[in-house]
Amino acid sequence: MKELYQRRAAAVRSRMKEMGLTSLILSETSALLYLTGEIIHPGERLTVLVIREKGPAFWVRNRLFPLKEGMGLTMDEAAETGSFADISFEDGEDSIKLLSRLLPAGKAGIDKTWPSHFLLSLMEERKDLSFVNGSPAVDQLRAVKDEEEIRAMRLASAINDRAMERISHWIHAGVTEKECAEKLLAIYKEEGAEGFSFPPIVSFGAHGADPHHMPDDTVLGEKESVLFDIGCRKDHYCSDMTRTFFLGEPSEEEKKVHDLVRRAGELAESMVRPGIPLSELDKAARDCIAGGGYGPCFTHRLGHFIGLKEHEEGEVSASSPLTAKPGMIFSIEPGIYLEGRFGVRIEDLVLVTDTGCEVLNHAPRGWRIS
Amino acid sequence: MKELYQRRAAAVRSRMKEMGLTSLILSETSALLYLTGEIIHPGERLTVLVIREKGPAFWVRNRLFPLKEGMGLTMDEAAETGSFADISFEDGEDSIKLLSRLLPAGKAGIDKTWPSHFLLSLMEERKDLSFVNGSPAVDQLRAVKDEEEIRAMRLASAINDRAMERISHWIHAGVTEKECAEKLLAIYKEEGAEGFSFPPIVSFGAHGADPHHMPDDTVLGEKESVLFDIGCRKDHYCSDMTRTFFLGEPSEEEKKVHDLVRRAGELAESMVRPGIPLSELDKAARDCIAGGGYGPCFTHRLGHFIGLKEHEEGEVSASSPLTAKPGMIFSIEPGIYLEGRFGVRIEDLVLVTDTGCEVLNHAPRGWRIS
Repeated sequence: MKELYQRRAAAVRSRMKEMGLTSLILSETSALLYLTGEIIHPGERLTVLVIREKGPAFWVRNRLFPLKEGMGLTMDEAAETGSFADISFEDGEDSIKLLSRLLPAGKAGIDKTWPSHFLLSLMEERKDLSFVNGSPAVDQLRAVKDEEEIRAMRLASAINDRAMERISHWIHAGVTEKECAEKLLAIYKEEGAEGFSFPPIVSFGAHGADPHHMPDDTVLGEKESVLFDIGCRKDHYCSDMTRTFFLGEPSEEEKKVHDLVRRAGELAESMVRPGIPLSELDKAARDCIAGGGYGPCFTHRLGHFIGLKEHEEGEVSASSPLTAKPGMIFSIEPGIYLEGRFGVRIEDLVLVTDTGCEVLNHAPRGWRIS
Repeated sequence: MKELYQRRAAAVRSRMKEMGLTSLILSETSALLYLTGEIIHPGERLTVLVIREKGPAFWVRNRLFPLKEGMGLTMDEAAETGSFADISFEDGEDSIKLLSRLLPAGKAGIDKTWPSHFLLSLMEERKDLSFVNGSPAVDQLRAVKDEEEIRAMRLASAINDRAMERISHWIHAGVTEKECAEKLLAIYKEEGAEGFSFPPIVSFGAHGADPHHMPDDTVLGEKESVLFDIGCRKDHYCSDMTRTFFLGEPSEEEKKVHDLVRRAGELAESMVRPGIPLSELDKAARDCIAGGGYGPCFTHRLGHFIGLKEHEEGEVSASSPLTAKPGMIFSIEPGIYLEGRFGVRIEDLVLVTDTGCEVLNHAPRGWRIS
């Protein structure tokens, strides 16, 4: 097994120790990718990677799914190579019983996304264990990116910058939101991305007031706002950026709102440095928008972490307990939403550095397509 | 609220009573669709529909997401109209605390797919409650389709029949598996389907020996087997069918294997009638294949239930506790997989009728494209 994955597994074990976990059951695709380099989508059948305080980590999986590279080892082989053992079952076997027999006494950490029916069955089998959300043991590591991850994140954002510029120059009165989404996918592929990192948000006019509007058949008018919240995936890592443009000359209020949102984001970005509580960034952007008279119209947290998933554990919000550390990457994305009229959101990804931050996005932030 | 959804909610309550549940927390998109007619994808934030023994059912959801039709009622309004009340929260609020305060004492049924971290937090808040998998209260209803559902399932399978005939006539030496998948999507759209019901399996030659092979850039040769396991979605309902063809004249063994798989499926289909244990269907098909000398090469259950999801709760397997009831729809899909060589699977959906079954698929089952 690659040294990188052995190092990550060791770091997870040391977090487990801090959390008092004797075992950790992982099922989320992005956690498995982080720890093994393999893309595995657990379907309805049990598929988990189990890390224990002592002894080799192991897969529990249905034999129906062919082995990936480096899988298929016995416990002894896994112990020798520092890799993962392979415990498999067939359709009709009780996979939870099989798993439960291999868990040591004590506190079991459970993947935050594990479907509840597995957990409830396991609790029934092992009444002697206590169960907690074990994902922080992996997520806290994932929140701080290493050099190779930072390289991939920069690359994904560079593609996103180019795509934003291309799509903003391509749009014209008469296109639909769905056509923009299709064009964007083609641009990403041409620029070397693997695809979307999330379904793109393309919102014309009043649709911009719904932060999660999904592209539909609405046609772009001659004089209208256009919000793109878009991201691609490159080498498994995600980008995510929002820009809001106006076709035709915007009204004074539209300009004012756009300017206020841009300033709120730039203010928060200027404050990022190691040690700052992330809640302070949220507060600064929120106060800035409130100062402009639009406080109640900024309806969501300022940002979220990102990496192998477009939203990772950790947020930039009033209730976030986190402080910035070098290597963290998160979004700064203030917005103002005026129902029935329009919405403006401007979003960048920032990387915390030793002295401040590096903004990963460089596409122009102005309302005019330039 | 439509009478259909009121009837379904009443049926769920009566199952809850049988299961001793005082509340039921639902989060799966297909369960929410079944009970409300709305497509709701719970993201990372808490989104649940809660049905209680007494009092109105209610949503718990983030205010960030706009209301769908008929949502937004107070508890009083919901009680009057027999609809669902709307309990909402904002980013930063503790949504699990909000939910926990509204749950009655007793046994809480939990959606089988609910992410474990929500359940673990709720267990921490409400140590007085007991928790079980509550999904059977909905899934047992969903297993038996009503007339409108049967209409949609027939329609989805009719489109699938046409698509299978069109794609099988379209293929030719030189195409790749991925190109077949793309062509298939275009065919589905032309035929009026909403899209795939699952990512299609297109397997050339030895790829057929992996039951879940994903389409890649492999090029089809002049003399090769082609396995299509495909399905579309129409009016929210899913189709699912598999055929295996040979380009060029197959070997004697290939013909023998194809014939054996076809006979095993037809045998199981001929046995379907109300009251038969589904495990007997699995056994009959398995014995048939074992009798032909390929027992160990049939590596999965005979079938699965299907409806709003491509795989629903309930299986046709050696360990299935179910017996056939009129209105049930499931797949019959025996297969033989010869590693490194080829694989054959033939799959139909069957609807249990009062006297036997109606096979929903009519595309020819032979190995020759006809």
